Amino acid sequence: MAAYSAPLDDFKFLLHDWLKVTDNYQAMNKGDFDADLVNEIITQGAKFAEEVVAPLNLNGDNQGCRLEDGKVSTPDGFAKAYAEYIENGWNSMLGSEIYGGQELPYSAAIPVHEMLMSANVSWRLICGLTESAVLALEKHGSDELKDAYLPNLISGEWTGTMCLTEPQAGTDLSLLTTKADNNDDGSYNITGTKIFISGGDHEWTDNIIHLVLARLPDAPAGVKGISLFLVPKFMPDGSANDLSVGSIEHKMGLHGCPTCVMNFDGAKGWLVGAPHSGLACMFTMMNDARFQVGLQGVGIGEASYQGALEYAKDRLQSRAPQGIQEPEKKADAIIHLPDVRRMLLTQKSLVEGSRALGLLYAKQMDIARFGTPEEQANAEAIIAFLTPITKSFFTDMGQEVSQHGVQVYGGHGYIQEWGMEQHIRDSRITQLYEGTNGIQALDLISRKLVRDGGKLLSVTNELFAQMVSDIADGSSRDQASGILNDWHATAESLLGTDAVATAAKAYDFMQYSAYSLIAICWLSMADRAQTSGNALAQSKTKVCDFYLKRIFPRASAHKISLALDEHDLMQMTADEF
Amino acid sequence: MAAYSAPLDDFKFLLHDWLKVTDNYQAMNKGDFDADLVNEIITQGAKFAEEVVAPLNLNGDNQGCRLEDGKVSTPDGFAKAYAEYIENGWNSMLGSEIYGGQELPYSAAIPVHEMLMSANVSWRLICGLTESAVLALEKHGSDELKDAYLPNLISGEWTGTMCLTEPQAGTDLSLLTTKADNNDDGSYNITGTKIFISGGDHEWTDNIIHLVLARLPDAPAGVKGISLFLVPKFMPDGSANDLSVGSIEHKMGLHGCPTCVMNFDGAKGWLVGAPHSGLACMFTMMNDARFQVGLQGVGIGEASYQGALEYAKDRLQSRAPQGIQEPEKKADAIIHLPDVRRMLLTQKSLVEGSRALGLLYAKQMDIARFGTPEEQANAEAIIAFLTPITKSFFTDMGQEVSQHGVQVYGGHGYIQEWGMEQHIRDSRITQLYEGTNGIQALDLISRKLVRDGGKLLSVTNELFAQMVSDIADGSSRDQASGILNDWHATAESLLGTDAVATAAKAYDFMQYSAYSLIAICWLSMADRAQTSGNALAQSKTKVCDFYLKRIFPRASAHKISLALDEHDLMQMTADEF
Repeated sequence: MAAYSAPLDDFKFLLHDWLKVTDNYQAMNKGDFDADLVNEIITQGAKFAEEVVAPLNLNGDNQGCRLEDGKVSTPDGFAKAYAEYIENGWNSMLGSEIYGGQELPYSAAIPVHEMLMSANVSWRLICGLTESAVLALEKHGSDELKDAYLPNLISGEWTGTMCLTEPQAGTDLSLLTTKADNNDDGSYNITGTKIFISGGDHEWTDNIIHLVLARLPDAPAGVKGISLFLVPKFMPDGSANDLSVGSIEHKMGLHGCPTCVMNFDGAKGWLVGAPHSGLACMFTMMNDARFQVGLQGVGIGEASYQGALEYAKDRLQSRAPQGIQEPEKKADAIIHLPDVRRMLLTQKSLVEGSRALGLLYAKQMDIARFGTPEEQANAEAIIAFLTPITKSFFTDMGQEVSQHGVQVYGGHGYIQEWGMEQHIRDSRITQLYEGTNGIQALDLISRKLVRDGGKLLSVTNELFAQMVSDIADGSSRDQASGILNDWHATAESLLGTDAVATAAKAYDFMQYSAYSLIAICWLSMADRAQTSGNALAQSKTKVCDFYLKRIFPRASAHKISLALDEHDLMQMTADEF
Repeated sequence: MAAYSAPLDDFKFLLHDWLKVTDNYQAMNKGDFDADLVNEIITQGAKFAEEVVAPLNLNGDNQGCRLEDGKVSTPDGFAKAYAEYIENGWNSMLGSEIYGGQELPYSAAIPVHEMLMSANVSWRLICGLTESAVLALEKHGSDELKDAYLPNLISGEWTGTMCLTEPQAGTDLSLLTTKADNNDDGSYNITGTKIFISGGDHEWTDNIIHLVLARLPDAPAGVKGISLFLVPKFMPDGSANDLSVGSIEHKMGLHGCPTCVMNFDGAKGWLVGAPHSGLACMFTMMNDARFQVGLQGVGIGEASYQGALEYAKDRLQSRAPQGIQEPEKKADAIIHLPDVRRMLLTQKSLVEGSRALGLLYAKQMDIARFGTPEEQANAEAIIAFLTPITKSFFTDMGQEVSQHGVQVYGGHGYIQEWGMEQHIRDSRITQLYEGTNGIQALDLISRKLVRDGGKLLSVTNELFAQMVSDIADGSSRDQASGILNDWHATAESLLGTDAVATAAKAYDFMQYSAYSLIAICWLSMADRAQTSGNALAQSKTKVCDFYLKRIFPRASAHKISLALDEHDLMQMTADEF
C-alpha cells in the first residue's frame, strides 16, 4: 500500500503564488498570519496526517466498528489519534476565540482538512462534523447553550453529530416524524429514530452532542414545521440521556466510522434557534458539511492518484511503444505506456483542478468571516453558488479518480491489501450523503440560479472574470475568456426555465459549470506558475494542456444535453421502463 | 433487496423480431431449433436463474469463501445449485455432441448466461470458465486428452480453470516463469505459482482441470516460448496431483467465487497443442472468456437497473416538479423526478443497447460454428473485431450502470442489505480480468485495426451497413447511415497510425466505436419494434430517443480526443507527475 505524502508544494503554490492569501489576510486585519505561519500550519498538519492518521486507514477498513452492550468502539488506534489531534489543537483551528478557538483563516485550515481526508476519511469525518456543529451553534444557539457547549466542542473534548435522516425522510425532510414535547422548563423531550448518524456513538470522548431535527406539537406540516434541538449523550449533571444506539449499519465502505441508528426515547434537548426554523439553522451546518464532503472527494482522489503513480513507476510490464525505456530491466515501468498516462493525467488534472477551485472557495470563506459587511455579502453569494458544485462535482470526481486508481493496478487493484479499492468504497458515500449529488445539482440550477434570478451567478461570474483578466498570457487569457463567456451566457439563457425543464437540466448544468470553471482555474494556474517562476511551472502547464484537450471536451457533451427539453426524459410511462 | 426477473420479453424481441435467429438456424441446418424451442430454453433458464441462483447472491457476498485444511468451500447453497445446474443439462448446452454436449446455437444459450450473471455472477463465473476450457480443449487437445476430459467437463462433472497470471506477469505474459519439465512419457512436471485463479478449488466437483501456461526447458524467451498444459487436480488413477491452494484472495467483491493462489509443485500435466504455441491455444479460451466477461457487465447492469427501477417506483420522496402525481400519498414516487429518470434511462439504454450488440455477436458465433467455411471466416472476422469492444465497453458500462443504481437509492444504496452496492463491487473486477479494458482497447485499435490493415473493419462495417439498409424508416436510416459512415471514415483514417499514437488513441477509439455501433443498434431496434408491432415498440422508440440525445453525444467528446496527437500525454517527465 502506498504511503500518503501530503502535496505541500501544490498547497503552497495555490495559497501563495495563485491566491495570494496573505495579502487577503492583511486586508482583513489578520496580518499576523504570514506565509511562514501558514506554511508551518500545513507542514505540521501534513506530518500529523502522514504519520498518525494515514497508518490507521487500511486496518480501520478491515476491522470496522463494533457495537457491544450498547457501546460503539472504533478501530484500533482511532481514539488515540483523536486524543493527539485535540491535544495538538487541530480541532480548534476554526472556532471563535471567545470560546477557546484559534480563528485561523479557512484557507490555512482547509489544506489540513484535505490531508486528513486523504489519510483516513473515516477518521476525519467525525472531526469534521463537530466543526459543522460548532458553526450552527455559534450562529443560532442561545448564549446559555453556547457557553455550556461550545468550549468543549471547539477543543474537541466532545464531538457533535447531525441527526436529520429518518427511514422515510431522506431527501425530503418534510416527511420527518421525530417529535419534541415541551417540558415547560426550557427543555424538550425528543422521541424518534434517526438513521445514518455518523459518529452517533464512539469511545473517543466523554460526551457526544447531537443536533436533532424534530417537530414541535403545534408545528405546521412540511419543512416549515421543523425545529433544531441540541441533545447531549450525557446531561449537564452527568446523567445519561434517554437515547441509545439501535445498530451500526453494514456499509460498502467508510468502515472506520460508526454510522448509527439512533433511538431518542424522550431524550432531553434544548431548542437551537427559533421554533420551526430548524431547517435554516441546520443549513448553516449542512453547507459547511457539504463543502467538507466535497473536500473528501479531493482528498480521496489525491490518495488514489498517489497510489496509482507509485505503482505505475514501479510495475514492470511490457515495453513502451515509443521504444525500450529501461533496457537493464525485463520490461518497462507502466508509466511509460500512453494509456496509463491517460489515466494518471486524468486523475492529476481533476484532483489539482478541484483542489484549486476548493481553495478559491476557502478564500471566499475567509472573506465571508473576516471581511467588511459588503465583502461578506459578496463572498457569501459566491459560496452559495459554488457549494453545490464543490459537493457534487468533487465527489463524482473522487469516485472517477478512484476508479482510475484501481485500473492502473490491473487485477491487483481488486485486492484489498493494496488499499486502492478502498478508495472506491470510501468515496462512494460522498456522492450520497449531505444531499445526493442529484439534489446538489437541483439546488444549483433551481435555488441558486433560476429562482435567484441570476444575482448569485453574476457575482460568481465577476470573480472568475477578474481571474481571467489577471492572466498574463494573451492567448491563455483569450481562451479562458471564451470559456467563461460561453458558460455565463449559457447559464443566463437558463433563467426563466420552468420547474420541470430545470430539474431535467440540473445534472448537465452542474457538470458543465464545473468543467468550465475548473478549465478557467487551470488556465489561470498554469499562467501564474509561469510568471511566478514556481517549480511546478512545467507540470502545471502540461497538465493544463491535457485538461483542456482531453477533459474539457466533456463540457461540450453536457452543453448539448442542456439544449434539450425534457421530452425524452418524461415521455416514458412507468410501465414502459 | 429486489428479486431478479429475467427480461424475457427483451430477449424474445431481440432474437426473433430483430435478429431473426431461427431463419439463420434453418440456413445452417439447425432448423430443429425453432422459436418455440428457443423460447422454452430461455424460459427454463430464467426460472433456474431466478429461483435457484439469484437467492444465493446476497448471502454469498456476505459469507464469502473459506480455505480450511487446504480445501476451499464456497457459500451455503452454491454447490447444491451447481449440482442442479449440471443435472438439468445447463452446463452442456454448447459442448460438442460427440462428447455428450447439446450443440445449442450460441444465440439460444447466451441469454441464459446473461441471466445467470444477473442472478449471481460469483456462482456463474466458475461455470463459464469450464465452457471456455472446453473450447480450448476441443480445438487444440489431442484425441486422447479430449476423450479423457471433455465428457466430464461438458457434463459439468468436473470444472475447468485458466492459469495464466503470475505475480510478475499479468498483462505481459512474456514474463511468466512457471516451468514444465518433460518426463519423456508424454507427460510434464509443472512447477510454479499462479495467482488470481477463479475457481482454483471448490467443493462442487470431484475433479478440477487446470489449463496452465508454462515454459518448456528449451523454450525461446518471450511469448513465443509459452506452452499450454492440462493439469488435473486428481490424476486419471485417482491419486492427488502435486498442486495446492496457497491462499484465497481478499477481494473488493466477487466474494462467492474463490480466487486462488495455486502452487504447482511438479504437478503432472499434458501438453495441449504444439510446444511453444500455448498462447495461441489459450487465446481460444480467452476470447470466449472475454465475451463472457462482457456479458457479466450486461448481466450485472440489468440486475442493478431492476433494483433501481423497483425502488424508484416504491420510494416516496418530495413532489414531482410537473405537479402532484400521487395525491393520496404524502409524497410522489421518485420515478416521477426528471433526474431519477435520467439515471434510469441511462441504465436502460446502455444495458439494452449492449445486450443487442451482444446478441448480434452471439449470432455471429452461431455462424462461425455452423456456417459454410466462407461464412465462418466472415463471422470470425466480425467476432475478432467486436470481442475487445464487448469485453471493455460492456464492463465499463456495467460499472457505470451499477453506480447509477446505487445513486437512485440515495444513502440506502450504500447499505449492504439492499444489494445495490454489491453490483459496483462485483462488476469492478470485470474491467480488470481477462485483460484490462485498456489492453482490450489496445487490442482493438492495434491488432484488429491498424496492424490488420482494415480488413476486419471492412467486414464489420458491412454487417452494420446491412443493418442500416434494413431500417424501414427513412429518417432513422439516414441517421444510422450518417453515424456508420462517420465511424467507418474515422476508423479508416487511423490506418497507418504509428505505435505511440495508436496506444494514445486506444481508449477513445474503443469508446467512440461502442457508442456509435450501439447507436446504430438502437435505431435498428426501434425501427424493427415498430414494424413488427412488438409490444416493446413504444419503449424501444422512446429509449432510443433518449440514447441518441443524451448518451450518444459522448461519442463526439471521444472523437475530439481521437483527433489529437499523443503530445499532451507524453510530454510529462516522470518527475513532473
